[in-house]
Amino acid sequence: MTLQVADSYKIEIGPISQQHFDWLKGREYSGWIVFADENTVEDCLPLIEAYLPEDTPIIVAPEGELNKNLETCRELWEAMFEAGVGRRWCAICLGGGVLEDMSGFVASTYKRGIDFLQIPTTLLSMVDSSVGGKLGIDFNNVKNSIGVFNDPSGVWIDPMFLKTLPAREIRSGYGEIVKHALIADSGQWDQVKGITDLEAVDWSSIIPPSVNIKREVVLEDPFEKGLRKSLNFGHTIGHAIESYWLETEDRLFHGEAVAAGMMMESWLSTKLESLSGEDLKEITTYLLEIYGHQSVPESAFEQLLTLMRQDKKNEDSRINFTLLSAPGSARVNATAEPEMIVEALKWYNGLG
Amino acid sequence: MTLQVADSYKIEIGPISQQHFDWLKGREYSGWIVFADENTVEDCLPLIEAYLPEDTPIIVAPEGELNKNLETCRELWEAMFEAGVGRRWCAICLGGGVLEDMSGFVASTYKRGIDFLQIPTTLLSMVDSSVGGKLGIDFNNVKNSIGVFNDPSGVWIDPMFLKTLPAREIRSGYGEIVKHALIADSGQWDQVKGITDLEAVDWSSIIPPSVNIKREVVLEDPFEKGLRKSLNFGHTIGHAIESYWLETEDRLFHGEAVAAGMMMESWLSTKLESLSGEDLKEITTYLLEIYGHQSVPESAFEQLLTLMRQDKKNEDSRINFTLLSAPGSARVNATAEPEMIVEALKWYNGLG
Repeated sequence: MTLQVADSYKIEIGPISQQHFDWLKGREYSGWIVFADENTVEDCLPLIEAYLPEDTPIIVAPEGELNKNLETCRELWEAMFEAGVGRRWCAICLGGGVLEDMSGFVASTYKRGIDFLQIPTTLLSMVDSSVGGKLGIDFNNVKNSIGVFNDPSGVWIDPMFLKTLPAREIRSGYGEIVKHALIADSGQWDQVKGITDLEAVDWSSIIPPSVNIKREVVLEDPFEKGLRKSLNFGHTIGHAIESYWLETEDRLFHGEAVAAGMMMESWLSTKLESLSGEDLKEITTYLLEIYGHQSVPESAFEQLLTLMRQDKKNEDSRINFTLLSAPGSARVNATAEPEMIVEALKWYNGLG
Repeated sequence: MTLQVADSYKIEIGPISQQHFDWLKGREYSGWIVFADENTVEDCLPLIEAYLPEDTPIIVAPEGELNKNLETCRELWEAMFEAGVGRRWCAICLGGGVLEDMSGFVASTYKRGIDFLQIPTTLLSMVDSSVGGKLGIDFNNVKNSIGVFNDPSGVWIDPMFLKTLPAREIRSGYGEIVKHALIADSGQWDQVKGITDLEAVDWSSIIPPSVNIKREVVLEDPFEKGLRKSLNFGHTIGHAIESYWLETEDRLFHGEAVAAGMMMESWLSTKLESLSGEDLKEITTYLLEIYGHQSVPESAFEQLLTLMRQDKKNEDSRINFTLLSAPGSARVNATAEPEMIVEALKWYNGLG
């Protein structure tokens, strides 16, 4: 299946084949370079290695969100220089969201930008970071706070890579599928909320409509001036929770933090928007069933509010939210007072 | 005088006034922030300070090419966070090429990019870096090797800032004016080669046609696929010389290195293109009169060739040049063998 994103690029969903690489050859780059991380170089690279010239330089980045930083960028840029990468080269980025965001940023700034192609290997990166051109790294303790908007030359989504993933990674990525349904498509929400066993899902049928929701939102608002902020649902509180847990021992996965964020922001939606108590209950029950519950220590509340205040989406000093008026319908640019956010955190703790 | 560069931005050449800042106010940013360097904060900021709100955060970067690096970017990003800069803010970049390139890059990547306005304060930045959207820093010992293409919201060129500059800075910037004439406008070359006293020049009449040459080239080829490379005349060897001298005690200014580069590349133009010996002599005589001569130690030749090989403009492993077929007419994508480049270096040394 092919989704046209812009004149310049398409998302291909389905098995990666020689045809894909023939297309890449047709673009006549001076060379290809592969970015992978410590995991994907082992588990995923072998699945496409046969299509690559033998002398293709492979640059391996350290794995994980904690390494999505300026220091790693420096290492990747240095490795590109060492490999003699020129401006007419193409970078093939093989990995999850962390690797895609960071290597895409590194490619977009190396010699003021070379082309790059994304092959997402996690569910999260297939349905989320593969569309929309958001690239970057964490900085100053704030997620994705340094980066650029830039489109890849193409995105190849092949569900075969999902077989290389642990169940917890799958569950993390699934959070964005739930989010896409909740903000934009009540029909998909009806379908999604019937899924309880993530190991039995036919991903090749679930991924395309979810990618398509994101694609439509992004096409209408590429630079996040308005509508695109709807994708932020669950993320104002979710990102803060993810950042907070990042430096603790049992860190949360992105989708787990966002699941908690979606519950709290649904609660805010019943206070500040028209979301019904019934819908809140249905959303909460479903998310708790899939993700369980993670208590938030009261001692963390102040730091969480500070992290929310640093969110890129804020204008002025108020904390910006995307809330739901109903399942399938989002309202951007809502704001909530710190006191009410604290109430939401307490309400969520009460669910545990 | 106003030069329209793109739908989105204009270059204003002339005295900066309240009108300029009224236009900026009309864009309704959430806040303004000023980037300056150690010199411009003293010499130039006072000339516009009256137009700024009192609480405008001023971020001061260390001065000079040696500080145009990733470490300084880190400090500037941190300072932006500390000042609470949001996505709907505008950065006012007040400085020469180093400050403009670096702060523009920092603004273009902070929270995936905020708007920025350039107020160039040196002759070099007025006629060169103010047009064309090239932003970035030096990395791995290669000039401008990390960066992005991004347009400012506007460029305000006010020759009053030139009064704050030492004569050597003026002479450095003047090199680009000579270059613009040589690659694109034989009429301007005739005018330029009559200028011998740089302290007696009426800049308000010399700057606009020079900016306009660059503007026309950039508009035809914003991403340097072809024509824009003509601006590279003198820069393949010039950049290498500049990089080499960067770490010595008596470092060369950009325009001084490029003047030497233009002489050598003019010599290559007589070997590889149709530039006449007479034109070579005229160019060389003029540039020596303005810039004098700087011998290049033979022990540096190998390192210079290595630096040239790392130039962003190269494709494959060959060293790319822009040469002259005549004054006012350039040919891009010429290449020269290392042996011939060494000959050019020796020829240049013989002029001293």
